[in-house]
Amino acid sequence: MKLATLDDGSRDGRLVCVSRNLAWCTGVGHIAPTLQAALDAWDDVAPKLEAVAAGVESGSQPLERFHERLARAPLPRAYQWADGSAYVNHVALVRRARGAEMPERFWTDPLLYQGGSDGFLGPRDPIPQPEPDCDLDCEGEIAVITGDVPMGCSAEDARGLIRLVMLCNDVSLRALIPDELAKGFGFFQSKPASAFSPVAVTPDALGAAWRDGRLHLPLHVDLNDAPLGRAEAGEDMIFDFGTLIAHAARTRALGAGTIIGSGTVSNTGPGGADDPGLPLAEGGRGYSCIAEQRVVELLRHGAASTPFLATGDRVRIEMKDADGQSIFGAIEQEVVAAGT
Amino acid sequence: MKLATLDDGSRDGRLVCVSRNLAWCTGVGHIAPTLQAALDAWDDVAPKLEAVAAGVESGSQPLERFHERLARAPLPRAYQWADGSAYVNHVALVRRARGAEMPERFWTDPLLYQGGSDGFLGPRDPIPQPEPDCDLDCEGEIAVITGDVPMGCSAEDARGLIRLVMLCNDVSLRALIPDELAKGFGFFQSKPASAFSPVAVTPDALGAAWRDGRLHLPLHVDLNDAPLGRAEAGEDMIFDFGTLIAHAARTRALGAGTIIGSGTVSNTGPGGADDPGLPLAEGGRGYSCIAEQRVVELLRHGAASTPFLATGDRVRIEMKDADGQSIFGAIEQEVVAAGT
Repeated sequence: MKLATLDDGSRDGRLVCVSRNLAWCTGVGHIAPTLQAALDAWDDVAPKLEAVAAGVESGSQPLERFHERLARAPLPRAYQWADGSAYVNHVALVRRARGAEMPERFWTDPLLYQGGSDGFLGPRDPIPQPEPDCDLDCEGEIAVITGDVPMGCSAEDARGLIRLVMLCNDVSLRALIPDELAKGFGFFQSKPASAFSPVAVTPDALGAAWRDGRLHLPLHVDLNDAPLGRAEAGEDMIFDFGTLIAHAARTRALGAGTIIGSGTVSNTGPGGADDPGLPLAEGGRGYSCIAEQRVVELLRHGAASTPFLATGDRVRIEMKDADGQSIFGAIEQEVVAAGT
Repeated sequence: MKLATLDDGSRDGRLVCVSRNLAWCTGVGHIAPTLQAALDAWDDVAPKLEAVAAGVESGSQPLERFHERLARAPLPRAYQWADGSAYVNHVALVRRARGAEMPERFWTDPLLYQGGSDGFLGPRDPIPQPEPDCDLDCEGEIAVITGDVPMGCSAEDARGLIRLVMLCNDVSLRALIPDELAKGFGFFQSKPASAFSPVAVTPDALGAAWRDGRLHLPLHVDLNDAPLGRAEAGEDMIFDFGTLIAHAARTRALGAGTIIGSGTVSNTGPGGADDPGLPLAEGGRGYSCIAEQRVVELLRHGAASTPFLATGDRVRIEMKDADGQSIFGAIEQEVVAAGT
């Protein structure tokens, strides 16, 4: 089943059920007005939505055209957004570039930060650049939405509480990160609003690509129409989503509608842990954020050449199934100066 | 105007308008079913709620008894909870105890972390102790709820966007903090669900005690019926709420219903910045968390004697007006083993 939230002028939008090919949709306001309302009563609501989804495919539902550009983030605002760093290669790479040791426990103890969730960007919303020289970057990620997760939940049980899967652009202000993290309280100003894909998809609708709490498909990240990354999201994800959720739930319950992010999708090269891989232009899988590409440039050539995002730059994040069909629709965003 | 959320079995509870003396209330579901709904349309809703509030005082409204024990957190879940550390004395003290330098900029650059907001504890809910030896602590704080705050908002403008004021018990697991902060991503497991006071109050209803974006009254924190702290919340708050909100909004807008916390209310002693003051039993103002009391014990006697919270311990947080009347009702919580 695929769900989306259409803009109807309200804060939380209008829930629709979307066809597998993303061409059609149908309103499900009679079942649940919003996605949060659906998540709040999932056991009761999901079977009804599944029945509608079947009708969307069979043609027994009245349909309207689905336009990705009219979709907001599936949850335009959420009660929780916790973003991991499950592709530890990303962390190792960024640290290596600045000559910082990465603690060995990062391979066994998940990194997870509490993100702002009071207002997300829609998949086609511009990315506001709050100020010049903030080193604006994209981060292509996978994210899941959970049901109610009890405190102390196991990773295995947590996998069964994943309701929906999405793509995410975790917008980052790189120039603000070192100073902010040095204060010890984590990210705040350096992580403005994230964007999510037009469509959220139930794990079962992902078929064999969804297994072991991971999504086994390449993540397409393009920068100004040129491919930047094609990293395999199922590889090098050291902590699966079940483990991330269990980590988040160690000392407290998680409310329905909690979004958990994977962190930047990142593969090691064929040489293993110390090999950051090659840019796409040189036959590698590339990178899901500009910072990684810059690190590799720095390590290989002594200087980074790819600039961070500036106004007018465009980022595209998408994932396709084996038939080349877009699964979640595309995040397509242009950077604009804040206030414009 | 005073507002509260009564438990009606739903996730977000039922909004009521409460009398100034906290004895009576009246349902306002015909105006806004929940506090979040009221905040979402505040400009339209607030005047109607104020009219009801006037009727509550004059007796022209049908009233029911208000029982603090039936109240949930004013926002049982929120889209954002960002907690500051505006009483820098608290930070200085805790750092001094472990021999860590405090950066000078902490006096000019606010500390603020993104907290979990997907499920808060009600004012009389037990505090679950997730595991033994986690050094469970209370933190008595002031918190405000904002309206929509635009990106780049000034501190002055932000002060005008404060809708409601509450008290908070920011539950902390001290034993988990050093390890978690060392990872660099801020608090997560070390900050389980916070609790809020039974009643949220508009700034104008606080009268002269609310000025300069600060609440100028002592915060009563009791531990097992003995006074622990009577710190003056209006003193030593280096960053007022306007400044904290502006800091949070530097790179992104804040959605209506954002909760901003002051951090542990903490005063210096009469000797100024290097004087942590005395425990209440010795004529000082005491402390709003156990950690501070322990730090002072350590500094004065070479060892901390007050234990952290264990099952059966009770915490009480309250604030009274000049007439000795409770303003927000009391947070009264008992520690229980998780799962009981």
